Amino acid sequence: MSAAPAPMSAADAATAAYELRKANAIARANRPHITDQPMTAKNWWKHLNLLNIYLIVIIPLMGLYGAWYTPLQKWTLIWSVVYYFNTGLGITAGYHRLWAHSSYSASLPLKIYLAAVGGGAVEGSVRWWSRDHRAHHRYTDTDKDPYSVRKGLLYSHIGWMVMKQNPKRIGRTDISDLNDDPVVVWQHKHYLWVVAFMGLIFPTIVAGLGWGDWKGGFIYAGILRIFFVQQATFCVNSLAHWLGDQPFDDRNSPRDHVITALVTLGEGYHNFHHEFPSDYRNAIEWHQYDPTKWAIWTWKQLGLAYNLKQFRANEIEKGRIQQLQKKIDRKRATLDWGVPLEQLPVMEFDDFQEECKNGRALILIAGVVHDVTSFIKEHPGGKALINSGIGKDATAIFNGGVYQHSNAAHNLLSNFRVAVVRGGCEVEIWKRAAGENKDSVSAID
Amino acid sequence: MSAAPAPMSAADAATAAYELRKANAIARANRPHITDQPMTAKNWWKHLNLLNIYLIVIIPLMGLYGAWYTPLQKWTLIWSVVYYFNTGLGITAGYHRLWAHSSYSASLPLKIYLAAVGGGAVEGSVRWWSRDHRAHHRYTDTDKDPYSVRKGLLYSHIGWMVMKQNPKRIGRTDISDLNDDPVVVWQHKHYLWVVAFMGLIFPTIVAGLGWGDWKGGFIYAGILRIFFVQQATFCVNSLAHWLGDQPFDDRNSPRDHVITALVTLGEGYHNFHHEFPSDYRNAIEWHQYDPTKWAIWTWKQLGLAYNLKQFRANEIEKGRIQQLQKKIDRKRATLDWGVPLEQLPVMEFDDFQEECKNGRALILIAGVVHDVTSFIKEHPGGKALINSGIGKDATAIFNGGVYQHSNAAHNLLSNFRVAVVRGGCEVEIWKRAAGENKDSVSAID
Ligand code: HEM
Ligand code: HEM
Ligand SMILES: [Fe+2]
Ligand SMILES: [Fe+2]
Ligand SMILES: [Fe+2]
Ligand SMILES: [Fe+2]
Repeated sequence: MSAAPAPMSAADAATAAYELRKANAIARANRPHITDQPMTAKNWWKHLNLLNIYLIVIIPLMGLYGAWYTPLQKWTLIWSVVYYFNTGLGITAGYHRLWAHSSYSASLPLKIYLAAVGGGAVEGSVRWWSRDHRAHHRYTDTDKDPYSVRKGLLYSHIGWMVMKQNPKRIGRTDISDLNDDPVVVWQHKHYLWVVAFMGLIFPTIVAGLGWGDWKGGFIYAGILRIFFVQQATFCVNSLAHWLGDQPFDDRNSPRDHVITALVTLGEGYHNFHHEFPSDYRNAIEWHQYDPTKWAIWTWKQLGLAYNLKQFRANEIEKGRIQQLQKKIDRKRATLDWGVPLEQLPVMEFDDFQEECKNGRALILIAGVVHDVTSFIKEHPGGKALINSGIGKDATAIFNGGVYQHSNAAHNLLSNFRVAVVRGGCEVEIWKRAAGENKDSVSAID
Repeated sequence: MSAAPAPMSAADAATAAYELRKANAIARANRPHITDQPMTAKNWWKHLNLLNIYLIVIIPLMGLYGAWYTPLQKWTLIWSVVYYFNTGLGITAGYHRLWAHSSYSASLPLKIYLAAVGGGAVEGSVRWWSRDHRAHHRYTDTDKDPYSVRKGLLYSHIGWMVMKQNPKRIGRTDISDLNDDPVVVWQHKHYLWVVAFMGLIFPTIVAGLGWGDWKGGFIYAGILRIFFVQQATFCVNSLAHWLGDQPFDDRNSPRDHVITALVTLGEGYHNFHHEFPSDYRNAIEWHQYDPTKWAIWTWKQLGLAYNLKQFRANEIEKGRIQQLQKKIDRKRATLDWGVPLEQLPVMEFDDFQEECKNGRALILIAGVVHDVTSFIKEHPGGKALINSGIGKDATAIFNGGVYQHSNAAHNLLSNFRVAVVRGGCEVEIWKRAAGENKDSVSAID
């Protein structure tokens, strides 16, 4: 400011600078974002997010190339797997369940550990990751969902990072709690250092100082391990919205599958998770694979985690039952349940008997007349018994008098309905009651 | 007759003989059956059915003893397995599905084959077996069921044969169709010959003439094969009423399990079978193990079997859905669904707002007032948003205005119910309608 040219006062300069910044900002805001333009043969490369492509495609390819010239030592393999699980947990137990969903609280040392190893997975800062993830939950499957599976499996897996995104499209969410968390803020501010150190330098140093395998540490525990952790956790956005059952809600895409769970350190019970996002568990059965849950539980025993949130079993079962009921109702609607009783003609009992004398094979059961002509020779109880019911009210006979028919036999009956008999039973009593009711009303009128 | 002693005419002799037989029969009928007497240290052996013990326990033991001194040759092993499947099918496809249940029709050659190999399984004649089996279906789990699992797993497996049975206890069934079948009648009449020949002589001859292994044929393809076939098919009475699911009806004991199916040549989908006994299938899915069904189907292609009975998929699915509904309803009754709406006090909207001003955290959603005090700090959408609903009708906000809450969130609401608001919504419209109705009725009075 003190070096401003003479004709302008300091205040003037500040104002001018402000105006300029403002004008630029407006211009930027008004310039249509690249994602608003259709992709063409000329501009397609502008749609690509080159930094991300570098991070999730080019580097792994270089790692593979390097691996070709680098023998894999036993200790380096072990270390790579160990570090794979640590950085994976950084994402699942840290980024996801702790910060995005606040499904438990962590002490400072645990937070620092999670922010560090989570950074080593190279998937962005806690702050950026959680903001997108909250939008994903709040706007699941809509255009505001940053990685909506409705745009394709590949898009939800990796496409949303490979292609540029219009930041205005992503749904807005409240991350004030994250902005209040010093660990989150620190990690976000120094993110590039965290990534470089935890993603590559630290795993290399461990292998180098530990057993002299600097190059192997860099290639295997660094680059290739990053690749595997990334692909595994990306599956939560793709596979978990594509493969499996929907025991709690089938209006949206999340699904439960053990394969997804195995790949993602237990994030595979994703239908449950979208329904109960603030539950620190993803798998609720003891025999399901959810090592992230086991880790959180262990930290609790060690005094590092507390306030583990859990939905009551009652609430979970309510959801399960309602979804099951929905499925049953849908299925029921596709089946043939016979002519509805109220659409059947009403027959006098005398006419029913008369028709049987004239040779029709009618049987009265529970007030409904059934024409069993086609069924007599197929009757599992034999012709004689079913014939013995013709022309009679066989309700009692059918319901245990001679034989207590199965549920299947009762169902079968509905195929043979031809009429209801006046004064036959229940249905008739009900019909009469309804009739009498009407009469009394018209009497009042 | 012509050799009758002089003082008696032929007619007299016949009459006397008849009277004698009659008296004997009455005496037999009146003498209490052994099963009517409690078992004691003195009479227990009288309760045993020694013939059956010999057939299903002693002979196999002898076979085992013989096997100790008889090397098992490769061809004898193959032949034993082949003959095992043939005699097993005699029971499952012949005795059971053809004769006991008439689930298909068979040409004469197929009938003769089935009666022969079924006899080789040494489980009684078609006639005796089917009569008991029909009683088992008609009186399942009752005292009239010859092998009711209610008397214990071991009883249903083998106990009912090892112990003497009172023939009068077993439920009566119609076997007139079997009495009309010449193959059944012939097999019953010559049963001992059939058993001896098909059970032991024939398998021995095949091994003896075929590859000179007379002794091995007798021990392995004869005795021990009988033992395995018996134990396997007995499992239909025991295991199939004890192990597995009940997808169609759970009022009785039959169950579906793949293990039972593997052991019994496909008779393991026994819950289905008891519900649809005249279906020639036991397993309805292509991937389930039911070789008996496959055999019947193959015979049909060869022109040996026809008129294969099958329940419509519609009927089967109806049964499945009803059973599922029963399970859901039972489960639903065990869950806490919150205070029923009709038990809640009615509150004026002004009072609702007043109470919130006085500091209560009440939110009105869909006509119901919720006290969310305990939930505010746990709200997954943050404190600010839930606080913004206090003192308001947040129905629209809750249902998509700000966030379309999950089904789980809707369920959770019912835990917080404290009142319904007069004029709030649906419920109130209904209540008002009911009120008005009453008014109009009392106006008429
Ligand atoms: C009117 C229509 C009838 C239908 C749709 C019907 C249907 C069936 C069906 C599906 C079975 C197989 C077993 C079961 O699923 O429970 C059966 C068995 C039987 N039915 Fe009927 N039935 C009818 C009438 C009667 C009548 C009027 C009688 C007796 C008077 C009778 C006596 C029996 C007996 C005794 C069995 C047992 C067969 C066995 O397992 O040995 N049924 N019936
Ligand atoms: C009155 C009782 C309320 C209950 C029981 C409740 C319950 C819940 C539950 C269980 C969730 C987790 C996500 C889900 O299951 O859908 C949730 C999320 C949310 N709630 Fe509420 N809520 C209440 C009131 C409100 C109100 C009044 C608002 C807004 C004015 C609100 C806004 C939200 C938002 C925005 C989320 C999304 C959080 C996220 O996934 O980022 N809630 N609520
Ligand atoms: Fe998701
Ligand atoms: Fe999540
Ligand atoms: Fe059975
Ligand atoms: Fe059966």
